[in-house]
Amino acid sequence: MNKDIEYIKRAINLSKKGTYPYGAVIVKDNIVIAEAYSGEGDNLDPTNHAETLAVRKACKNIGSSDLKGATIYSSCEPCFMCFGTIWWANISKIVYAANIEESNKVLNTPIDIGVEELNNKTGNCIKITGGILEEESVKVMEEWLKNKEKI
Amino acid sequence: MNKDIEYIKRAINLSKKGTYPYGAVIVKDNIVIAEAYSGEGDNLDPTNHAETLAVRKACKNIGSSDLKGATIYSSCEPCFMCFGTIWWANISKIVYAANIEESNKVLNTPIDIGVEELNNKTGNCIKITGGILEEESVKVMEEWLKNKEKI
Repeated sequence: MNKDIEYIKRAINLSKKGTYPYGAVIVKDNIVIAEAYSGEGDNLDPTNHAETLAVRKACKNIGSSDLKGATIYSSCEPCFMCFGTIWWANISKIVYAANIEESNKVLNTPIDIGVEELNNKTGNCIKITGGILEEESVKVMEEWLKNKEKI
Repeated sequence: MNKDIEYIKRAINLSKKGTYPYGAVIVKDNIVIAEAYSGEGDNLDPTNHAETLAVRKACKNIGSSDLKGATIYSSCEPCFMCFGTIWWANISKIVYAANIEESNKVLNTPIDIGVEELNNKTGNCIKITGGILEEESVKVMEEWLKNKEKI
């Protein structure tokens, strides 16, 4: 199985555990150095998004705040805050499943800026691939929304 | 003394203590609910910017991740990551001193997106005022750069 697909699958599986339906995996030299799902951290911390949590864990795990050479796999296109965390941590590549528009439906948010535009405005440092297993990720989001409506 | 000036002065004073020359203060109902300077947290955490640290502290201090009604005072225009933290925490107002271009000189970063543009692309939820005591803040940055060159 293609490695990107394998890690995106892992991120989507993590998204099923989240307070919100998002998961992320960070890989360096073919080793998973961190993974996280939304809300896994302190629930009083508004930055407890899957990607930001995964970046913070990865830095602790490898003992460096520089993740050059690493790839972050996310079940959804990272929001502008998480893109910022990824950028400051010097991550080289982002691979994601669903687009930010899908996330806007889940969270009812008006985010009209994606990672490509952010990358363009911050030196184009990061290689970005989106849309891998998007349908699988959206299914998790739809399931999450359905369960929320039941409550 | 105008309250905005008082709190920006406090943020600039904090910026003198930082690993990098940035400081931030969060005020709600005329009470300082958190303050922080760059690098105050875990130095393996790439999110240890003054504003993000201050938001995390504020949420812990008031026992809520919703800071609606609060104002963040920053010695510098928040970067896109910190704007994200501020936005997700639902902070109502940003007041800052120096512009992001000044920060780019300090950090040698190519950040070509500021808080006004980010606000426009995320629902215009936040009131923003910039340029208060900018010169004082830039002086701290210049001093920081001078000391760095000596090392």
